[in-house]
Amino acid sequence: MAYSEEKLSEEKVFKDPVHRYVHVRDLAIWDLIGTKEFQRLRRIKQLGTTFLTFHGAEHSRFNHSLGVYEIVRRIIDDVFAGRPEWNDSERLLTLCAALLHDLGHGPFSHSFEKVFDFDHEDFTRKIILGDTEVNKVLLKVDPAFPEKVAEVIAKTSEKKLVVSLISSQIDADRMDYLQRDAYFTGVSYGQFDMERILRVMRPREDQVVIKKSGMHAVEDYIMSRYQMYWQVYFHPVSRSAEVILTKILHRAKQLFEENYSFKYEPIHFTSIFNEKVTLEDYLKLDESVILYYFQIWQEEADPILSDLCRRFVNRNLFKFAEFDPAKEYKKLAELGSLFKKAGMDPEYYLVVDSSSDLPYDFYRPGEEEERLPIHLLMHNGELRELSRESEIVDAISGKRRTDHKLYYPADFLLDDTGDKDVKKQIRALLEL
Amino acid sequence: MAYSEEKLSEEKVFKDPVHRYVHVRDLAIWDLIGTKEFQRLRRIKQLGTTFLTFHGAEHSRFNHSLGVYEIVRRIIDDVFAGRPEWNDSERLLTLCAALLHDLGHGPFSHSFEKVFDFDHEDFTRKIILGDTEVNKVLLKVDPAFPEKVAEVIAKTSEKKLVVSLISSQIDADRMDYLQRDAYFTGVSYGQFDMERILRVMRPREDQVVIKKSGMHAVEDYIMSRYQMYWQVYFHPVSRSAEVILTKILHRAKQLFEENYSFKYEPIHFTSIFNEKVTLEDYLKLDESVILYYFQIWQEEADPILSDLCRRFVNRNLFKFAEFDPAKEYKKLAELGSLFKKAGMDPEYYLVVDSSSDLPYDFYRPGEEEERLPIHLLMHNGELRELSRESEIVDAISGKRRTDHKLYYPADFLLDDTGDKDVKKQIRALLEL
Amino acid sequence: MAYSEEKLSEEKVFKDPVHRYVHVRDLAIWDLIGTKEFQRLRRIKQLGTTFLTFHGAEHSRFNHSLGVYEIVRRIIDDVFAGRPEWNDSERLLTLCAALLHDLGHGPFSHSFEKVFDFDHEDFTRKIILGDTEVNKVLLKVDPAFPEKVAEVIAKTSEKKLVVSLISSQIDADRMDYLQRDAYFTGVSYGQFDMERILRVMRPREDQVVIKKSGMHAVEDYIMSRYQMYWQVYFHPVSRSAEVILTKILHRAKQLFEENYSFKYEPIHFTSIFNEKVTLEDYLKLDESVILYYFQIWQEEADPILSDLCRRFVNRNLFKFAEFDPAKEYKKLAELGSLFKKAGMDPEYYLVVDSSSDLPYDFYRPGEEEERLPIHLLMHNGELRELSRESEIVDAISGKRRTDHKLYYPADFLLDDTGDKDVKKQIRALLEL
Amino acid sequence: MAYSEEKLSEEKVFKDPVHRYVHVRDLAIWDLIGTKEFQRLRRIKQLGTTFLTFHGAEHSRFNHSLGVYEIVRRIIDDVFAGRPEWNDSERLLTLCAALLHDLGHGPFSHSFEKVFDFDHEDFTRKIILGDTEVNKVLLKVDPAFPEKVAEVIAKTSEKKLVVSLISSQIDADRMDYLQRDAYFTGVSYGQFDMERILRVMRPREDQVVIKKSGMHAVEDYIMSRYQMYWQVYFHPVSRSAEVILTKILHRAKQLFEENYSFKYEPIHFTSIFNEKVTLEDYLKLDESVILYYFQIWQEEADPILSDLCRRFVNRNLFKFAEFDPAKEYKKLAELGSLFKKAGMDPEYYLVVDSSSDLPYDFYRPGEEEERLPIHLLMHNGELRELSRESEIVDAISGKRRTDHKLYYPADFLLDDTGDKDVKKQIRALLEL
Repeated sequence: MAYSEEKLSEEKVFKDPVHRYVHVRDLAIWDLIGTKEFQRLRRIKQLGTTFLTFHGAEHSRFNHSLGVYEIVRRIIDDVFAGRPEWNDSERLLTLCAALLHDLGHGPFSHSFEKVFDFDHEDFTRKIILGDTEVNKVLLKVDPAFPEKVAEVIAKTSEKKLVVSLISSQIDADRMDYLQRDAYFTGVSYGQFDMERILRVMRPREDQVVIKKSGMHAVEDYIMSRYQMYWQVYFHPVSRSAEVILTKILHRAKQLFEENYSFKYEPIHFTSIFNEKVTLEDYLKLDESVILYYFQIWQEEADPILSDLCRRFVNRNLFKFAEFDPAKEYKKLAELGSLFKKAGMDPEYYLVVDSSSDLPYDFYRPGEEEERLPIHLLMHNGELRELSRESEIVDAISGKRRTDHKLYYPADFLLDDTGDKDVKKQIRALLEL
Repeated sequence: MAYSEEKLSEEKVFKDPVHRYVHVRDLAIWDLIGTKEFQRLRRIKQLGTTFLTFHGAEHSRFNHSLGVYEIVRRIIDDVFAGRPEWNDSERLLTLCAALLHDLGHGPFSHSFEKVFDFDHEDFTRKIILGDTEVNKVLLKVDPAFPEKVAEVIAKTSEKKLVVSLISSQIDADRMDYLQRDAYFTGVSYGQFDMERILRVMRPREDQVVIKKSGMHAVEDYIMSRYQMYWQVYFHPVSRSAEVILTKILHRAKQLFEENYSFKYEPIHFTSIFNEKVTLEDYLKLDESVILYYFQIWQEEADPILSDLCRRFVNRNLFKFAEFDPAKEYKKLAELGSLFKKAGMDPEYYLVVDSSSDLPYDFYRPGEEEERLPIHLLMHNGELRELSRESEIVDAISGKRRTDHKLYYPADFLLDDTGDKDVKKQIRALLEL
Repeated sequence: MAYSEEKLSEEKVFKDPVHRYVHVRDLAIWDLIGTKEFQRLRRIKQLGTTFLTFHGAEHSRFNHSLGVYEIVRRIIDDVFAGRPEWNDSERLLTLCAALLHDLGHGPFSHSFEKVFDFDHEDFTRKIILGDTEVNKVLLKVDPAFPEKVAEVIAKTSEKKLVVSLISSQIDADRMDYLQRDAYFTGVSYGQFDMERILRVMRPREDQVVIKKSGMHAVEDYIMSRYQMYWQVYFHPVSRSAEVILTKILHRAKQLFEENYSFKYEPIHFTSIFNEKVTLEDYLKLDESVILYYFQIWQEEADPILSDLCRRFVNRNLFKFAEFDPAKEYKKLAELGSLFKKAGMDPEYYLVVDSSSDLPYDFYRPGEEEERLPIHLLMHNGELRELSRESEIVDAISGKRRTDHKLYYPADFLLDDTGDKDVKKQIRALLEL
Repeated sequence: MAYSEEKLSEEKVFKDPVHRYVHVRDLAIWDLIGTKEFQRLRRIKQLGTTFLTFHGAEHSRFNHSLGVYEIVRRIIDDVFAGRPEWNDSERLLTLCAALLHDLGHGPFSHSFEKVFDFDHEDFTRKIILGDTEVNKVLLKVDPAFPEKVAEVIAKTSEKKLVVSLISSQIDADRMDYLQRDAYFTGVSYGQFDMERILRVMRPREDQVVIKKSGMHAVEDYIMSRYQMYWQVYFHPVSRSAEVILTKILHRAKQLFEENYSFKYEPIHFTSIFNEKVTLEDYLKLDESVILYYFQIWQEEADPILSDLCRRFVNRNLFKFAEFDPAKEYKKLAELGSLFKKAGMDPEYYLVVDSSSDLPYDFYRPGEEEERLPIHLLMHNGELRELSRESEIVDAISGKRRTDHKLYYPADFLLDDTGDKDVKKQIRALLEL
């Protein structure tokens, strides 16, 4: 029997707190889950530094990846199977892309991407196509299969329907993470009636569409997404931890470039600092490695590196103030000068961080091509873009919301060290 | 105002998926949570290797410790407050003991305790009484306060009622972990009606007792505990991971003693291997450090160490067979010889692991003193031991259940390497 | 001790699926729950005919009334108690008003109000002030107490803060019914984080306000309300059942006025038909009485009454079509003529039903005075109207949505009786 | 196409709070749900008088019947389909039997069965085979089909596997009602992992069996059942309401036999009192009819009938005391004499009520044939009776627990009427 068709002798299940069970029957899926590249996702948290705000948010990307796979499996097997618009020969491709879509994520991806110009999507592609256990499994399906999976994940595939199941404004990725992150943080906002949405999904040539009768469930999903962004993902305390984390990486890189002599040689970082990271090096990175360095770096001689590491490890974070870049750029400059006077490098200790989100958008040709709008399938068979039917979605559609905050170490400003007068001026400016 | 009486200007809450919110008003509690020793519990998983079986079980002891605190806080503030049998001056002592009861746990405690003779209860005491941030906070309450807290946790305190809230057969520790572990694994067995149990708890001189009307809720709790032990805590796949983990530590220690030259020097292990671990060294241990070593040790020259580390990191675990030590000790010896012939050291590759639990026990003087029985408070004010009133509890009371399994690397036995005939004999004996 | 201060010797609890437990300590509350007027609410469904669409929605107003009481109790005892803006002497008044706010509801209130010009609020007042068990209990508190309770419920009380807890755009009434109706129907839309909202409620002179930090929870609550209205309360199938129910009452009244000789004399309806209903008569009405009549009326000689009753009892409802009154009034007239020709009285068999809701509104002086806007309490102590801070609420604020549907008996139009040609014309117009 | 094969053009779903959705594709099932005999189950509460103790328990047998159908549908379509031991031509038979298994239940069945010797199973058979809408639908499948369905429900069918799905110690009936009753009452005890149990069910010739790996889930189910019996179904307050209800029926029958002149002629009861009830009469009975009579009978001249009805309608129930028939029969006789002296007929006002349950039993040939034991399917294909494998089940297996209580009107014993001395003696005996 072709490997692509091989089934396990008995279905395997993973107990999952969000979907109850994740079901695996395909041998290829089972083999992929067993690869070391996929197992590595157990050592990377789904929400990075969020666990420092919501202590339950300690779940990994391994968790989430299984969840996305399970949602896609249910859509295909329970809803699409047998419908003429669905080509079941694309089933395994879709399942593999769902399972592997986050494979290239590294530890604390956002910060690494910012400091080292990493691109996790690029690494996903490299892992799928490179000399890896994942690649070996995919090759058993078909020599062209790895490339096909990579294209779906990269959204360059011609199979637009398949792509839309994994990457669109209502895809399995979002449906899993909203529910999962809500479950682990304990906030209720991420809940929506996914069962209902799955039941009203219909395959069309270019994308998955939603039967009109499910519109309210989709509205609820969009509101959940909106709430999760502002209440969890952009929570200012988590962003504070991320600011510190980014600054640690930044500092270490700078010290390396300045030939600083590390007490503990950062062997896992050498190729990164040299901007010559290989796939093999990259795959050795995970959060236990990063945290290991942060812990030993607490003992480094460089006061900034050791201070920042102590802050991260012991959760002694920066405080924040509202900040309006348009109006307060002068104040920021002034604060920068004062920080220097007070002996705090503003590069590391006075940080503006911005968050921005667009809860939903209709299609804007030529602008942001990946924002595929959600289409409703009307009773008469026509398609209508969601915001034309839903007043609530119309009300928030295309409205970007942005938030800027200024982060700083309040403890330094309140203790007895340094120039008291300067600190007083800073506190006055920060209304501390 | 005395530090022990100081309240936060505004109550702080932690969003908790199990208890909805954890509420903190006491400054001392807030300060303890902020100490680096307590924050360290974020880097130690509540369920050790269980996440390799139940992928949701990635939650930390930090999580659980807050939960135990919250349960005790609710018992005291919502149920005990105002009752003549409760002395509210012991409130802060009880809350601190609840919060800190697991403070001395290290990474993968069970394995470390087995291999290195560590005792996490001993380390809890050392952290509370030693030169730590936790100790500094406790001292602010009263010079004798750290010792008092340590005694409650060690169950040597004379305040037996306080002790029973934290360590008994129906304590806040168990009530939190059953629910929390059920929540994160996603199994339903750990659920019971804690709200009901809290409402029927009553303080008595020697221990907390349960009003008769709540007996069924307690039965349900005991059954939950039974199920969680056998379905989650003793799950044979998690035990397989723990067997491997234990053997890694064992091997590393042996290599160290044999003056093996590590490619990467295990600086965090030196004092442990030398059996001279200090509190400072101990506090540097957490699961990111351990996992870091396991990852780099995959590249060690010693084939056993590197193989075991690869197995753990990539979740390529041992398989298991039922094993009856009384009847099969000869078979075990035979398998040992065959393993040697096949080139596999039975010390590391043929491991008997046993689990044993007593779901509930009445008081047996002189035997196991810490098994304080659960007492029901009857309508007429008398106390009756639970198993005398509950048929179900009586049916399982004092019945120890034990399970033995034999772990081995099935992949080695199925591949093409080594002496085929010997492997065939092994497979036959293992019915593989 | 004054009756208003008397407590039960032991707190009583009601197991409640929505709030876990409803707690009663005040003797007056306990006594009110035991009155026959309050027990009568057990025989009146919270959602009228909705159980014919969502089969779980069989819960009673008794259920909901306890829930509103419990929410108010928690706000007062857990959040307001001890705050200077809250006058705890109004505690019992608030609890009683919460418990009794729906006391005057009759069976299938909406239909009765439509056909017989009943006003359930007026009956609530009459029950509280009349010769009833409820009145006797309230009088024990204070001779003026019944009037005070009635004024709070009628929103004429000067105690605006108390009124706002029970009747405002974010009151205990709404918070209970959204959650309760969601629970019993099984839809997820009614869920929101009430615990969070309770924690951020603050008493102010004129109304309860919400701390700014809870704004997102309030947004979620408003969206829940919106969804519940359109997905549950205005569900077209439930409205079909209500149309039939209204028409039954209408027909029975008309027959009575025409001196029709009922096979079973409708003794419970006599004073209603005569428009001389007394409080005593009114209190005898409940859904078992109404359903009893609907069942025996299935055997009445009048074909319209018996047909409509059979439809209601056996759930053989009318079908519906979208209807635009502005554009389709001519079609409606034409259908009316055709229905007559086909032997179906359009008065009973061709019914336009409209639903309309305003999800949230800010204050519009002189228009709809009861729409007290929700105010946020900013960090600096100022109050800001919700829609000025929340983009989402602003987007839907003041936007009334209305839906019209045309109901008709599809089975009559599809069977073989009557003038086939006329029926064909009707079906064509209805696109059936 | 054969009617038995006909599918709805689009699947219909019912929103169900317990199973999320109930799915219907078969036209025959859809038609059965629409019959008036099935719709009648909406007017009969699943738990009779339990709503007077657990106010949420207002759900109907309609609810439960859909749930049993859905569970069976899932077992057949998701687990059994395709297995050689399952004959899919029995699918519709099984679904119909599941849906209709409670069809013959009348209002407050237990009391009616006790007083009038009704047998709801007999009525189920009559409805299925008689001149009813249900019978007409079943006949469309096949002339022999109604008889087949009736035999499955009556457990006389030769299709033992089909029977066991609906009536055994682990059937769809029990699995639905435990979860549903837990949901609506709000108690947590009825929860168990049904998803897990469904997944490990396997068809065998004579019965459904459970894979060994699911044993713990079955243990949990049995404990849930045990808890629900003693905490909900046998709750002494609900039994008090049932005692009163039974006595009302008893009294009305006696009055009828004594030619008492009812103020309101009980036309729905005439044939019942005459012991000549027809199917047509029976089908007119439901809880709205019964409650209607209880309400109007509050105004009857007979003091016992009117008092008991007022007690039931206004929930003014009897109190209870523990009672040991073996030891206290003399006391009961003494109390009977005293009650007569005090003017209270002990026939109606001094009632012993007993509850008894066997949580699980293995097969005892010749004794209670319907107690089909649960069999585990071992890894080697053998079957083992559950209590041989499960220590917990073994511990409670075959152990009948019985509880007796004595019910009486405490209010009568505490008020000022009648012979004070006699009442004092009664109170002393009852320790009131």
